[in-house]
Amino acid sequence: MKIANQNNRAVLLSGDRVVDIEQASDGHFPSDIAALFGAWPEFTKWAQAATLAPTGDLRPDLLMAPSPKPLQGFGIGVNYAKHVAEAGWPVPQYPLVFPKFPTSVTGPGTTIALSGPRVDWEVEAVIVIGREAHNVLAGDAWDHIAGVTIGQDFSDRDVQQRPESHPQFGLGKSFPGYSAIGPILVTPDEFEDRDDIALGTLLNGEQVQNSSTGDLIFPVSALIEYISGIVTLTPGDLIFTGTPSGVGTAWDPPRFLREGDVIESWITGIGQMRHTFSGPETVRV
Amino acid sequence: MKIANQNNRAVLLSGDRVVDIEQASDGHFPSDIAALFGAWPEFTKWAQAATLAPTGDLRPDLLMAPSPKPLQGFGIGVNYAKHVAEAGWPVPQYPLVFPKFPTSVTGPGTTIALSGPRVDWEVEAVIVIGREAHNVLAGDAWDHIAGVTIGQDFSDRDVQQRPESHPQFGLGKSFPGYSAIGPILVTPDEFEDRDDIALGTLLNGEQVQNSSTGDLIFPVSALIEYISGIVTLTPGDLIFTGTPSGVGTAWDPPRFLREGDVIESWITGIGQMRHTFSGPETVRV
Repeated sequence: MKIANQNNRAVLLSGDRVVDIEQASDGHFPSDIAALFGAWPEFTKWAQAATLAPTGDLRPDLLMAPSPKPLQGFGIGVNYAKHVAEAGWPVPQYPLVFPKFPTSVTGPGTTIALSGPRVDWEVEAVIVIGREAHNVLAGDAWDHIAGVTIGQDFSDRDVQQRPESHPQFGLGKSFPGYSAIGPILVTPDEFEDRDDIALGTLLNGEQVQNSSTGDLIFPVSALIEYISGIVTLTPGDLIFTGTPSGVGTAWDPPRFLREGDVIESWITGIGQMRHTFSGPETVRV
Repeated sequence: MKIANQNNRAVLLSGDRVVDIEQASDGHFPSDIAALFGAWPEFTKWAQAATLAPTGDLRPDLLMAPSPKPLQGFGIGVNYAKHVAEAGWPVPQYPLVFPKFPTSVTGPGTTIALSGPRVDWEVEAVIVIGREAHNVLAGDAWDHIAGVTIGQDFSDRDVQQRPESHPQFGLGKSFPGYSAIGPILVTPDEFEDRDDIALGTLLNGEQVQNSSTGDLIFPVSALIEYISGIVTLTPGDLIFTGTPSGVGTAWDPPRFLREGDVIESWITGIGQMRHTFSGPETVRV
């Protein structure tokens, strides 16, 4: 199944048409996709069994973040073998987990204010949780996943790598809009191989990242086992699973995002999303 | 004002009695304290102007986390001059921010499952946001704060300090119950000097931490300016402002929490809260 948040209403995709989930279920399931994640196992059972007639058109211009207000967002650093090599880092012994704070989430098609001169792209496969997970083993991990969406873990390298002795990735990846997700959520069964999903980034039309989740050091199931062994994962939570090689900071010379740049992010089986950039905010509230 | 979350209802304290906020406002303000933070400026104006008759007794045994489901939780590391000295760390140039994931929040009086053999205490003054804050300057910071509560930033030192080259504090401080807050929220005006608040920890009755927020390297107003310059702070969000010296890992020999230990945390002007500990969870769900 392909699910989207179209103009703040949860819909099922059916070619160029959509099924409004609240309408088709006579109000049994909510229009609010964040609330729908709380009823995910029941919803998917119903959606698979029901014969659903489209209620309207798919409107790509009205698609919003498929989990717009997660309780928790997690990012994984240093998780693609080739990206680790390009950065000259050692291979981590444990998943390197950092926060993607919920207020940084944006949907597809938005313009994002750059926070400084060294902001980078990082395309990622993003997992959305569909069933609470605490101490879940890798073998059961996919049962707790609602689906996969495209993500960009935009990263202010200056804030991420403060020149001090206590490095934390946290805030440099949580400016408003720096957790971009969309345009739709695809359930795991839709992928030919859910552990080998191709993904990439185009910068102004030129392909700059191109890899597959098959290259993950810690695959999705290992991430769920590790994180859920510590933190309770709740429906709608996001896991940004890491980025492959090709980020701008590793270029020679480095290349960072500028006003007017266009980033297109793609995942085979999901589609693509597009973001543009404006200069730094200057307003203080 | 002193506000509490008594048996899932927001109340104002009045000596040994309480005023139920929803009841006293004829339903104008919600009983859900998380929702109340969304109307905080209006609520405080009303509460200051109204003559409010108590509606029931204060029940310390029924007090719960004063912000039980924050959208975002932040922790600050390495923020007390003396604690930095005891650990032999350099003084940070910027606040060291890590996540306190929302599912780790617990209230006063609970029993917390230890995640391993090296779990430590960290008493902290915890700030609860009362008004959205984005790019707020230090001079305006306190206007965005609903109040102060007592916090324990329980820390699994093994998970926090994984033996690898990409240190992240994140998950070691977010096991269930590791963000303990309570028992009540006190508005900033109640403190004689809101930038010099005494706090401490007792381990089985013995004082092991005893300091004041006057010793903070980055005071509350600087933290709000720094964090809100990156992440949008929302009503109910928590900031754990850092812990003073006296944590168990710095003892010689180190002393970590054991089953049956009692931790009492206190802040002058707020009160105290108490936690006990059980062995590690073994159940996998």
